[in-house]
Amino acid sequence: MSFTIPSPDVAFYESARARQDQLIKPTGALGRLEDIACWFAARQRRTIPSALTPGITVFAADHGVAQHNVSAYPASVTQAMLSTLSNGQAAIAVLARDINAMYAVVDVGVAGEPSKTQNIHNERIATGTADLSTQAAMTIAQAEQAIAIGRQHATQMINGGADLLIAGEVGIGNTTSAACLIAATTQLDAGVLVGNGTGLDAKGRAHKLTIVRRALSRVASTQTLSSIQLLSELGGFEIAAMTGYYLQASSMGVPVLLDGYISTAAALLATRIEPMTREWMLAAHQSAELGHALALEHLRLRPLFNLNMRLGEGSGAAIAVPLIQTALRLHREMATFAEAGVPGA
Amino acid sequence: MSFTIPSPDVAFYESARARQDQLIKPTGALGRLEDIACWFAARQRRTIPSALTPGITVFAADHGVAQHNVSAYPASVTQAMLSTLSNGQAAIAVLARDINAMYAVVDVGVAGEPSKTQNIHNERIATGTADLSTQAAMTIAQAEQAIAIGRQHATQMINGGADLLIAGEVGIGNTTSAACLIAATTQLDAGVLVGNGTGLDAKGRAHKLTIVRRALSRVASTQTLSSIQLLSELGGFEIAAMTGYYLQASSMGVPVLLDGYISTAAALLATRIEPMTREWMLAAHQSAELGHALALEHLRLRPLFNLNMRLGEGSGAAIAVPLIQTALRLHREMATFAEAGVPGA
Repeated sequence: MSFTIPSPDVAFYESARARQDQLIKPTGALGRLEDIACWFAARQRRTIPSALTPGITVFAADHGVAQHNVSAYPASVTQAMLSTLSNGQAAIAVLARDINAMYAVVDVGVAGEPSKTQNIHNERIATGTADLSTQAAMTIAQAEQAIAIGRQHATQMINGGADLLIAGEVGIGNTTSAACLIAATTQLDAGVLVGNGTGLDAKGRAHKLTIVRRALSRVASTQTLSSIQLLSELGGFEIAAMTGYYLQASSMGVPVLLDGYISTAAALLATRIEPMTREWMLAAHQSAELGHALALEHLRLRPLFNLNMRLGEGSGAAIAVPLIQTALRLHREMATFAEAGVPGA
Repeated sequence: MSFTIPSPDVAFYESARARQDQLIKPTGALGRLEDIACWFAARQRRTIPSALTPGITVFAADHGVAQHNVSAYPASVTQAMLSTLSNGQAAIAVLARDINAMYAVVDVGVAGEPSKTQNIHNERIATGTADLSTQAAMTIAQAEQAIAIGRQHATQMINGGADLLIAGEVGIGNTTSAACLIAATTQLDAGVLVGNGTGLDAKGRAHKLTIVRRALSRVASTQTLSSIQLLSELGGFEIAAMTGYYLQASSMGVPVLLDGYISTAAALLATRIEPMTREWMLAAHQSAELGHALALEHLRLRPLFNLNMRLGEGSGAAIAVPLIQTALRLHREMATFAEAGVPGA
């Protein structure tokens, strides 16, 4: 797997910065809003970036490891959530309306029968992964298929007009898979990476940590694993799809806005496959899930805010979109000192 | 001066919290967005608060102390900014459009001739305050007049339909006045409260600190000053107007969203006059101005984000509005577990 990732254009970053320095405000007074405007200038290759059309794709899948009670919710929730994602009842569906996003829901491998609900893309690889604590979660071929599905959906969003992509997920058990992947990619100890997920108590978390350590020791003896091998051993279909989604968006020169813990695990894999992918990533928020801050630090990404959220679905990323749109609007619509006839410093 | 400030209704806070616990997400997973929804429920006195109509009033005034070069910008900027506030070129004017806010600009005492620009409320008390480092910035009567102007404009916004008020300000030299007021109300040392304002260098800041200490020592010998006396000695017309604005909004049971350093100085005075005012205040952001974090702490208010902004005008507050609207929308539009037929934990 090889991707050519374009570089952001530093010249447009600089010209946007020069514009910011001329807008009627003290230099730097808009703080990170100024940085955001310059960041998008470098990626849209214009001094004054346009308003964004966000595209949100939510990937849903089940996890064999959920049979070990690593989540506060039963595995059947994944299937039940599918219809709420497509009929507008779930948080991310409300948020997609709120920010006028293009929106798609993709079943990449939920357990049970395919949902009869309309508007769900059926791309089911299997009815959930195998139990990653005892065997590979999926075959190499399945991991490649999941990545290809993610790539295809990123392409679809971009061809449809989206120029800021958000990947969301639903999948009971997926913080366990994500913890394994974050541990394997960052070399951090699982003890600082395994959190309470949907709401485990201390005992539940301790049990989840045992399961994560078991999975990690299962693959520890193997020589350094490729990223596809890591996804195959420890991943989930939705996480592999998100990895492909990020790779494809970056290769097409379209920024992605990261969400929380699961999203960041996929981002770590995407950058492991192609480090330049990181240049197209913006971290929306720091989640309350233990280990998310460390994972973002490893990516050298600084989140915009911390609202103690831990929902997933892409919700934290969607909430950052109005802030980003506002940063771009200020950059576009504020007058310069010269235009306004205001004396400078 | 005496105000009757209504109490938020705890019963609606609780019923909103009960609703949050039934929405299809792990309990607490929306973090501070859940708290925001419950906070507004208690103040709108309904379990499901409606979308907000924000009202932004920007108060502009000049400061005699500006003659000591306590700002990186010349005092003439205040006058020049007036037209950019009313013709849509200034940051807060862009933001007001962005969030569909009701919007008013009030000249409470800018130096020079009254602006010929339309849409500016002329409520000029004087052509700037006196130099607070050597004498009282304004008379008691002027402080009372400024408070009355602020109250009147809050009433006007609320009668016009606004149910979330934001006070903004423009006034070269006003971080010096605000620093004096914050020091006097919190008893914190000026050394931790005086920042770089619009962009002073270290030497400029040291000079500003000297001026602030001079003003504070001028009033230190007097016995405990009333809040009106403090405003008269150390205030600015716009800060006194904002104090009145906050008091009036609270007395009418309408929440206010605080902005940065100047706004928080006015908030400290409003709560010193009537402590219950605090129950109607929400802190939008933590500004980059030294001392703002301490001032918010003194108010026991926790900002929603820190984007390293230090512009004033009400800009930090305006930027928080979409986030708040989104929190309320999720509370209104997400389905409950029962409605969605999703199994709970």
